[in-house]
Amino acid sequence: MDGDGVPENGSSDAIAHGGILHGGDLDAARRLFPDAPEPWLDLSTGINPVPYPLPPLIASALHRLPSPGDLARLKTAASAAYGAPGPDHVVAAPGTQILIETLPRLLPPARVAVVGPTYAEHAAAWARSGHTVRMVDDPAEAGGAEVLVAVSPNNPDGRVFTAAALTRAADGGLVVLDQAFADLEPVEAASPGPGLVILRSFGKTYGLAGLRLGFALAEPALARRIETALGPWAVSGPAIAAGLAALPDAAWRREAAESRARDAARLDRMIGRAGGRIVGGTALFRTADFSDGPGLFRALGAAGIYVRRFAEAPERLRFGLPPDKAAWCRLSRVLR
Amino acid sequence: MDGDGVPENGSSDAIAHGGILHGGDLDAARRLFPDAPEPWLDLSTGINPVPYPLPPLIASALHRLPSPGDLARLKTAASAAYGAPGPDHVVAAPGTQILIETLPRLLPPARVAVVGPTYAEHAAAWARSGHTVRMVDDPAEAGGAEVLVAVSPNNPDGRVFTAAALTRAADGGLVVLDQAFADLEPVEAASPGPGLVILRSFGKTYGLAGLRLGFALAEPALARRIETALGPWAVSGPAIAAGLAALPDAAWRREAAESRARDAARLDRMIGRAGGRIVGGTALFRTADFSDGPGLFRALGAAGIYVRRFAEAPERLRFGLPPDKAAWCRLSRVLR
Repeated sequence: MDGDGVPENGSSDAIAHGGILHGGDLDAARRLFPDAPEPWLDLSTGINPVPYPLPPLIASALHRLPSPGDLARLKTAASAAYGAPGPDHVVAAPGTQILIETLPRLLPPARVAVVGPTYAEHAAAWARSGHTVRMVDDPAEAGGAEVLVAVSPNNPDGRVFTAAALTRAADGGLVVLDQAFADLEPVEAASPGPGLVILRSFGKTYGLAGLRLGFALAEPALARRIETALGPWAVSGPAIAAGLAALPDAAWRREAAESRARDAARLDRMIGRAGGRIVGGTALFRTADFSDGPGLFRALGAAGIYVRRFAEAPERLRFGLPPDKAAWCRLSRVLR
Repeated sequence: MDGDGVPENGSSDAIAHGGILHGGDLDAARRLFPDAPEPWLDLSTGINPVPYPLPPLIASALHRLPSPGDLARLKTAASAAYGAPGPDHVVAAPGTQILIETLPRLLPPARVAVVGPTYAEHAAAWARSGHTVRMVDDPAEAGGAEVLVAVSPNNPDGRVFTAAALTRAADGGLVVLDQAFADLEPVEAASPGPGLVILRSFGKTYGLAGLRLGFALAEPALARRIETALGPWAVSGPAIAAGLAALPDAAWRREAAESRARDAARLDRMIGRAGGRIVGGTALFRTADFSDGPGLFRALGAAGIYVRRFAEAPERLRFGLPPDKAAWCRLSRVLR
């Protein structure tokens, strides 16, 4: 009843994609813990639990194909929000994941260094496209690589790498800097340029992951190549409408950054009281090591709370932010 | 005021993608005819003008990442609606366009024959990925090709090609059969298998092009490769919810097929009275040749009605279906 007998390696409790496990699969959580109380509290992802308040969707956003003008306005808004030199440096995509898949297919076979452990789809996508991939602990170990990939702040440990440091380490090679979790952080907004491609996630920051919207920032020639590979109309009308509403709203983003930072600090205290050692994280998730990680995972699961675990580090758990007071109370009842 | 001086080659009035022109760009129509009455009547695409009545969207479809269970249910619904052997033969994508882009990148360089004139992105996508592309007027001319691409019913002329005839003509090669306009037609629902990939468009049939949802039907090994190239979460939560609501609704689709067929016949009569010679079409658009195609395009544009023209055939215009009584009246005032 409390999840005894659950496999510890995470092989069945997360979204599998080419053998990679992700959070966000409540169906799997239900299979693991069939007696857990409903509704589940899903803390297995790093999505802002307080979504941007969208205006009502006009019907034509569903009916019509998005127009080039719609897309141009979205790219202008993204360029301003992310501090890119201009809309010609912006590629809009149905989520950053498809950008992670697409970019490696556009480049000739290269030696690729990925700073990790990190979001596993990076290394997998480069390997799938025939590149030679090596994991490195630190950018400084990337010598000889033609492409250097880093996530900053890193998922799941929150390590921060600056564009300048990565560019230096890449020594003339291409740097791919995934800033999926940067929007709500006090980190630099890196600016794309020759040799530097940046990924930004709309869905995580604005709590709208189901909409599928993400961006690549790159110098115009490469941006154009990525855009061509995605084809016209890759981004939906509702996603464009949401981006146009939310991206210019700097006040909301500032308030969200402050609120989520308070949430993250509160979560750290709660984790600390439960004996967890904070490894790191961002304003949207916290990662900690526990003396009995598998046991805590089971206790949480039995209480209907789903967190992210890691096949390679059983002591480690990653917690997304609870969305409301009831959820905080529910989590605190297990973390004590 | 009536559009004199408008360039005739269509170079500025349609969505440009790699030099290919598409309909659906009302911003361009407004630039061409700045004095036309608003709102514009957009007949430049082949999207069902009567959208499927969607149920209210549950908020979690926007907030959460779509789960593997959501996607599996969508693939099961698509498999049943399209008559595929099972969900393992189905790939869900954010529109068929991205499938047209992706498939050529997964195959080694090949000799490709595209039956045309047709939707221009097919030939362009294969050429971009390094394949050798040849346009043929008829599948029977495809001898020596390793890949044969056909759209059926064809856009813009409505020609129909059966899977059996294409497979015979391909002589062991791969057949890519784009059935984007087949759902509302009395044509066979082709079933995917070794050597046959089928594309189906959700957005056109259900009048929800802005949602971005389309499918590839293929044998499981290839379906899996396409799915991996798109990555997890390629399809949005709202698109999954719409597919789950609409695809099982056979009664709606049957009624839509009947109603749109009546609309198409009415449009043919109207075009005929205006001196047009119907070339062909589907239940969602009609294509006709006129003695003065450019003049009629300008007259329609001056009246705020946007139709599709073709750079290579200036006498030819393609009309989507008017959405309501007022739109029919507006069109009939020009077509007489």
